[in-house]
Amino acid sequence: VTVVLLSGGTGGAKLARGLLDVAGDELVVVANTGDDVEMYGAHVSPDPDLVTYWLADRIDARGWGIAGDTFHVMDELRALGVDVWFNLGDRDLAICLQRAQRLGDGLRLTEAIIELTQALGVQARVLPMTDLGVRTRVRTGGEWLGLQEFLIRRAGAGPLEDVTYRGAEQAAPTAEVLTAIRDARAIVIGPSNPILSIAPILALDGMRAALRNADAPVVAVSPIVNGAVLKGPTAICMEWAGQPCSAAGVAAFYGDLIDGLVADEPVAGVAAIMTPTLMDDPTARRRLAEQTLGLAESLGG
Amino acid sequence: VTVVLLSGGTGGAKLARGLLDVAGDELVVVANTGDDVEMYGAHVSPDPDLVTYWLADRIDARGWGIAGDTFHVMDELRALGVDVWFNLGDRDLAICLQRAQRLGDGLRLTEAIIELTQALGVQARVLPMTDLGVRTRVRTGGEWLGLQEFLIRRAGAGPLEDVTYRGAEQAAPTAEVLTAIRDARAIVIGPSNPILSIAPILALDGMRAALRNADAPVVAVSPIVNGAVLKGPTAICMEWAGQPCSAAGVAAFYGDLIDGLVADEPVAGVAAIMTPTLMDDPTARRRLAEQTLGLAESLGG
Repeated sequence: VTVVLLSGGTGGAKLARGLLDVAGDELVVVANTGDDVEMYGAHVSPDPDLVTYWLADRIDARGWGIAGDTFHVMDELRALGVDVWFNLGDRDLAICLQRAQRLGDGLRLTEAIIELTQALGVQARVLPMTDLGVRTRVRTGGEWLGLQEFLIRRAGAGPLEDVTYRGAEQAAPTAEVLTAIRDARAIVIGPSNPILSIAPILALDGMRAALRNADAPVVAVSPIVNGAVLKGPTAICMEWAGQPCSAAGVAAFYGDLIDGLVADEPVAGVAAIMTPTLMDDPTARRRLAEQTLGLAESLGG
Repeated sequence: VTVVLLSGGTGGAKLARGLLDVAGDELVVVANTGDDVEMYGAHVSPDPDLVTYWLADRIDARGWGIAGDTFHVMDELRALGVDVWFNLGDRDLAICLQRAQRLGDGLRLTEAIIELTQALGVQARVLPMTDLGVRTRVRTGGEWLGLQEFLIRRAGAGPLEDVTYRGAEQAAPTAEVLTAIRDARAIVIGPSNPILSIAPILALDGMRAALRNADAPVVAVSPIVNGAVLKGPTAICMEWAGQPCSAAGVAAFYGDLIDGLVADEPVAGVAAIMTPTLMDDPTARRRLAEQTLGLAESLGG
């Protein structure tokens, strides 16, 4: 039996940490890999790593990267005149270099990530959504950009003119992901950006069908907290998707894919519980995880 | 007009630093690349980098790597369970990652190294002996090993059963190397291991002919100091080569390739000057460089 969480970065990763307290090693996080980037000889997987660092209690207070990490490799690259737009800590880089090494050895991305998360002492499973290359790209100001480029170089500033999940229609979820979904007692869509973090997962060949056919209910947690977006370009994404930037908009975006919604504002037309969704400490993360699984349980599974 | 130094690691690199004081930007170091290794997504060039760090006054007191460098990437790789036998500092790694990046961009090794040495503020030119892959391999205990593996994992311990410079006969020196040799007023063979550091350079297709045809005299500096080897497996290498581990053995190994020898012991049968060859401070390095160029000048060129 599993508890499956579909997750992007920060919001989903925090909920993953809460779910770890509640579900322990039943937890399987299916992480978006649409942001993956190859650079510095490394394979950078921002969302799987953010989830992993949260689950390993190694996330830095700044909200990304490894606690207490240094940036000496990037400093030296800058000194050499390299345009270092993606800042990766030294220990973070080691993990990404080792992932590239293992992919070069012939491992699937799933195997490489399982190996790394185990080496980091994570009890839950972190699975990339697919072993194949899916790349989320956005158009802004007439220009197509990779997602991390958009988030970092453009600070995620819009207007958002288009979004594409390149390769997603040709990429299936892995056998590990499909098995976890089939065996789930609850499937949770984390409070990550619906368009940039969750939609790439849903765009995979066969993913929506797998979720529809699962025995477990699908419950989403709204990323809108106190009527606002905590981090990242969710507002312009919702606008691009033609939805209000509210829990109702999130529910409408997911449509009949979800059986329930957890939000801090009332939502009509879907089974919902209303509860504070800010996850700024371990207690809040655990409580939100408990309530989310409570909603799933009440919906039958 | 150039002053050309054929160099391996420590001894040659120290002499390079002395020659920089004397010859300034006339200095062209032709560095052995038979030790190059690809690992951690990086292209590691131990000898060119050792020379570069000496010339940039950034060599660490330990005798390799960059002064004050940290080892956080390697620490994390070890924590992940990787067998880290080649210890590379974080800033050192940045340089090797950037070299791999630029090779991937399509640059020749020569171009990548010139770019890096310029970025590090080195006035002299450091040239890899060739742009092609030459790999020095040694056999010990019946097993063939790459050179860095032999030096690090086996601590350079013999017996040395065989040595090969794989690819050398198919690899020509670069146009930059050949031009530097043609334009030289002095050609110096540095006090590096004759068999493991200098012979790979001499084994290149056309290198001996280029040295023979040069106008400049070729002068070697003996790596034997006070009758002993300061660092590395020179003794077992000389034994394998059938030569005594002495200045006379070094002269015999180079044979008619050299016109003169600098050593701290008398040698018959070759134009030689006898002088202390320990280079443990800037004054000693500069003095030995001056005397070496003095010998070359006296031999005409």
